[in-house]
Amino acid sequence: MPSPNPDWVKALKPSGPQGSELLQQERSRSALNVDQLATFMFTSEVLKRNAKILEILQPHDKPARAKALRQLSVKHGWSQEEYNAANELISEPTPYGLHASMFLKTLEEQGTPEQHKLFLEPARRYDIIGCYAQTELGHGSNVRGLETTATWNAADKTFTLHSPHLTALKWWIGSLGLAANHAVVVAQLILNGKSYGPHPFVVQIRDLRTHEPLPNIHVDDIGPKFGYNTMDNGFLLFNNVQIPHINMLSRFSAVDPATGKYVRPANPALIYGTLTYIRSMIVLQSGSTLARGVTIATRYCAVRRQFQDRDTPEGMVGENQVLDYTMVQYRILPLLAASYALHFTGRIMVNLYNANQERMSQGQNVRPGADAKRSPGPEQLNSTSDLLADLHAVSCSLKAFASTTAAKGLEVCRRACGGHGYSASSGIGSWYADYLPTVTWEGDNYMLTQQVTRYLLKTARTVLSGKITDANSIAGVFQNFDRRQDIGAAFDVLDNDQDLVDAFAWRVAFLTFEALKHRDEEKQSWNNLLVDFWRVSTAYAQYLAVKNFYDALQDKNTTASLDSTTVELLHKLFQLFAFYHLTSNASEFFASAATTVRQIQLARTKRTLSLLQDIRPHAVRLVDAWKFPDWQLDSALGRYDGKVYEDMFHRASLVNPLNDEIIDPYPNSPVLFRAGKKTKAKL
Amino acid sequence: MPSPNPDWVKALKPSGPQGSELLQQERSRSALNVDQLATFMFTSEVLKRNAKILEILQPHDKPARAKALRQLSVKHGWSQEEYNAANELISEPTPYGLHASMFLKTLEEQGTPEQHKLFLEPARRYDIIGCYAQTELGHGSNVRGLETTATWNAADKTFTLHSPHLTALKWWIGSLGLAANHAVVVAQLILNGKSYGPHPFVVQIRDLRTHEPLPNIHVDDIGPKFGYNTMDNGFLLFNNVQIPHINMLSRFSAVDPATGKYVRPANPALIYGTLTYIRSMIVLQSGSTLARGVTIATRYCAVRRQFQDRDTPEGMVGENQVLDYTMVQYRILPLLAASYALHFTGRIMVNLYNANQERMSQGQNVRPGADAKRSPGPEQLNSTSDLLADLHAVSCSLKAFASTTAAKGLEVCRRACGGHGYSASSGIGSWYADYLPTVTWEGDNYMLTQQVTRYLLKTARTVLSGKITDANSIAGVFQNFDRRQDIGAAFDVLDNDQDLVDAFAWRVAFLTFEALKHRDEEKQSWNNLLVDFWRVSTAYAQYLAVKNFYDALQDKNTTASLDSTTVELLHKLFQLFAFYHLTSNASEFFASAATTVRQIQLARTKRTLSLLQDIRPHAVRLVDAWKFPDWQLDSALGRYDGKVYEDMFHRASLVNPLNDEIIDPYPNSPVLFRAGKKTKAKL
Repeated sequence: MPSPNPDWVKALKPSGPQGSELLQQERSRSALNVDQLATFMFTSEVLKRNAKILEILQPHDKPARAKALRQLSVKHGWSQEEYNAANELISEPTPYGLHASMFLKTLEEQGTPEQHKLFLEPARRYDIIGCYAQTELGHGSNVRGLETTATWNAADKTFTLHSPHLTALKWWIGSLGLAANHAVVVAQLILNGKSYGPHPFVVQIRDLRTHEPLPNIHVDDIGPKFGYNTMDNGFLLFNNVQIPHINMLSRFSAVDPATGKYVRPANPALIYGTLTYIRSMIVLQSGSTLARGVTIATRYCAVRRQFQDRDTPEGMVGENQVLDYTMVQYRILPLLAASYALHFTGRIMVNLYNANQERMSQGQNVRPGADAKRSPGPEQLNSTSDLLADLHAVSCSLKAFASTTAAKGLEVCRRACGGHGYSASSGIGSWYADYLPTVTWEGDNYMLTQQVTRYLLKTARTVLSGKITDANSIAGVFQNFDRRQDIGAAFDVLDNDQDLVDAFAWRVAFLTFEALKHRDEEKQSWNNLLVDFWRVSTAYAQYLAVKNFYDALQDKNTTASLDSTTVELLHKLFQLFAFYHLTSNASEFFASAATTVRQIQLARTKRTLSLLQDIRPHAVRLVDAWKFPDWQLDSALGRYDGKVYEDMFHRASLVNPLNDEIIDPYPNSPVLFRAGKKTKAKL
Repeated sequence: MPSPNPDWVKALKPSGPQGSELLQQERSRSALNVDQLATFMFTSEVLKRNAKILEILQPHDKPARAKALRQLSVKHGWSQEEYNAANELISEPTPYGLHASMFLKTLEEQGTPEQHKLFLEPARRYDIIGCYAQTELGHGSNVRGLETTATWNAADKTFTLHSPHLTALKWWIGSLGLAANHAVVVAQLILNGKSYGPHPFVVQIRDLRTHEPLPNIHVDDIGPKFGYNTMDNGFLLFNNVQIPHINMLSRFSAVDPATGKYVRPANPALIYGTLTYIRSMIVLQSGSTLARGVTIATRYCAVRRQFQDRDTPEGMVGENQVLDYTMVQYRILPLLAASYALHFTGRIMVNLYNANQERMSQGQNVRPGADAKRSPGPEQLNSTSDLLADLHAVSCSLKAFASTTAAKGLEVCRRACGGHGYSASSGIGSWYADYLPTVTWEGDNYMLTQQVTRYLLKTARTVLSGKITDANSIAGVFQNFDRRQDIGAAFDVLDNDQDLVDAFAWRVAFLTFEALKHRDEEKQSWNNLLVDFWRVSTAYAQYLAVKNFYDALQDKNTTASLDSTTVELLHKLFQLFAFYHLTSNASEFFASAATTVRQIQLARTKRTLSLLQDIRPHAVRLVDAWKFPDWQLDSALGRYDGKVYEDMFHRASLVNPLNDEIIDPYPNSPVLFRAGKKTKAKL
């Protein structure tokens, strides 16, 4: 360990005013009721549960990971929710991550009762450790392109798993690099020489005692990544490996062992549903993911002082809090607004998904008829539309928008912390790096926009054929646009919030009808329209987020739970969020005649400035309401108490493992040090 | 080491067509003369020099770092340029980085001949290893706010260096964490209780033999960072440390040892010049920084195949090259264009700087009079303007724009590689992470925009007062705008390249005059205008980059050195670059009436699509022209020969140090593994 600091160093304090004084001052300037807002956002049950889990974790070092976590879970008899909450507090991927999520979930959802007994029960006890092996070295988004085969052998009623090419290597598989001894392998099912598409198989890959790979299986770790290095990602190859018939997960599709005939899935919609659920969760989590960065940046920018304002009268001493500069506010506060917007949108998405699942389990799925009118936002789905298709499109477009927003926003927050944002002690860098895969997985954010636009184009065609009447769905939006587009819009976006939402709806309709014209009338190729489609889908997601935020504020439950000051402040966040996207995509609003050039200019300058000014005094309390404990943030810059510089120095001088090393700096003596590691070479 | 692959694994090949075939096909589809273009960009001398250095480095492992590099440099008698070229091929920060750059440079430029003998000569021999200690824990951009003091002691003619607060810690200092035994310390000079502002002092900080810190000096490494972890960054504290009078670097300002009086700098403009030089180099390097990412993404997207186009007739087999999708082209090709734009702009900047240095050394500095008309672009400077102020503003605005573009662009390239972009073997992640500090250092990119706009506002005021007549400077642009703004612009941006450049000029003038009105007429506060100022400065940088690219293509040397096919292709890159920024900032072009809404729509859709289509077949050759050797790229995805999957598998299975470890995966046995490292726990 590094040697203790000498007394003259210990005696040093930061120059005043102290960070703790500044944050105290921030909190005293605002009357926002933090606990009330937090309770409204998360419920008091969840807040209490998190506090309880934190109390258990806190005595442990931050890396109370993987095994320790599982041990604590058993010891305290945690439910799945409590285990998840602990995982979120630890906030980093662990080698059991994919076992606890995808492996168990796939066995649960796709296994028969017999398979549950055989695989799921030991997996739940951690007697076997599993992973989910779908992606291949040469095949990501396009599941139908997978090369690994599972060929049925009628003679001995087995499947042969085989990797015909190097591009068929299973690759990127989380928990496979070192931890897993079993895998759910997605492979092309081959019966009598004919392919029936990708299906899931349970395969043991390592010996349960020695942990060595089984014969004809080649498995290892894929090596270092940009982030996610606390998780092992592996590769996997098969050389004609035989597995029993029971290892094909058969709840939906199956092979009849007697005849070797393929049994078609009873209800493909359920599989569709899982993806929608995962995307809904990504939307919900994107809000808190971003909020962590915003919390750190906001607190640090309130503690950090730099320069004087150029208009400061001569003779004034001291520097300004960085958060007082409008350029800094303009970078951070729209992200604060976005974190709330994504939270409310995510919550509505998850509720919608749950409502639909319940309805499906009552057998009312796929075409729910008049019943659908009772479903909660983001779209009141009209009676002739396909509810699942709607949900799918909404979840795709919001997943792409929300995760892009969170990833981009985290980097903005990191830079807003200036030079120190680059330090590991900022707590943003590794958080950002670990989050980045989210923009690629569960549907690449660009790929998804094609599916969304396909749905919007289809809906627009139905509207034009005169078949849709429900005014509250996106079809209603299209219908309204179709009726009014020659008359024009004239939305009062500056002073009327409903009009602001309507302007976003108008823009989606405009862009969709333009795209439809290019495709159906001008017969342009699909490929030539991909950029337009991406714009349409993004506009749709922004409309949904703006509308959901607005709807959440109109909700009776909201006005009943929050005092009027808080509701008013949330309204300002809503406006800032909407203006931010309105002005960032100004040309689409002009071109569609949703707004005038002058309106955009005013939204960008006067109105945005005045919102920043109104929100600024409450910024610290607004991030406090996210209730991230310091233990979770693990950030010197984002400390609740503002003791930023003390913490940075502490981390550097007392807990920095590099500082017990002395090297020989001269070129003609041995190695100086190597990437990321320093070699001891004491003179 | 990992065990060798079994034979059945060795026999596997990627499914066809092979990456090598696809890249061969790409190269045969285009007639672009790669060597001719490369020679034009870099000169044949530089290309030969780089090839020679590469030959020396190549037999070494990629981490032929720091000491090894210095040893090779001595062995082969490298010049400074050759040493720099080697550093660029190695492409990562090393512990001598700041010794070889900032420490030597500061001693050279700010030392007297006596100080050169005392400090510079041993430093050049690496007998002492130094760093440049300016930034403090609580003070970054605002140098005047530094807290470290250097107090003159008349009695014994020494200075006392002292750190009065924790915020006065020197922090982030490159090479200080482990390597340096000397530092140039920037401290507030105090004479008779009065502060004379920050000045540079040479201070020995570690023992030359034991490398232990000297008494009353506290120095160590600041700990891990988001990137740059191959460089040691340190902190440094002084407890009343005395240094002799000779240790204050005194070429410009000095303290007279006899009287203790302050001697003012002879020519502050020269210091100004160094910063301008560093920023010019950042602009030039931003082009090649970005080009590395674009090279990797372009080659990999030509090798990677995914899905079929939706319009593909049924029955067609095989997937499309990803580079054929317009959405991918739209993400990568404007960055390819930007890499060229930044290269040409950077080259013009560096030439301009050199021309000015030469003029200054001939004593014609500061107000160069009629002579300035002979200076090469980016601005023909008119006779009454301050040449250095112009250069300063140009370098500030371009530094901010260029480094933001390169950093953002690298991340776009990484994502365009899909999931594999996240792997360390993509070669983009660590390159991006190491580059990121560039947006913050040498002037934070947001802070700089204030200085640029101050200059533009001042120039606009001069124009309005009727004092400027030179039609080629930015003043001329303002004058033209002032004359014509009531008549309107009507630029033919779609079909006339000069009009396209003029539209960018018009927009800068419009935004500057708007800002001027807010500040001078409406008397708005400086702080309230910061966001507007940032827009003005960004618009100015884009104008300069567009204009410089265009000017470079008009240059006689260009048309003499390149065949017409190449010039034509570069023209398309110029147009794509300009359209990209025109459509991304569409509302500023509408609002200023530089273009119509319809023009923007056409630029965004038809014109951009047709440019993408025209450039697409030459994309691989256009990145080849940057001439990055595979050894430098260190990327499986970006290999010149297209053997992407073979290389990824090779890195994972044969050179991955993690794969010689076996762990015990069960929760109740010892540790699984920790962040980034795996613990051996063989069963």
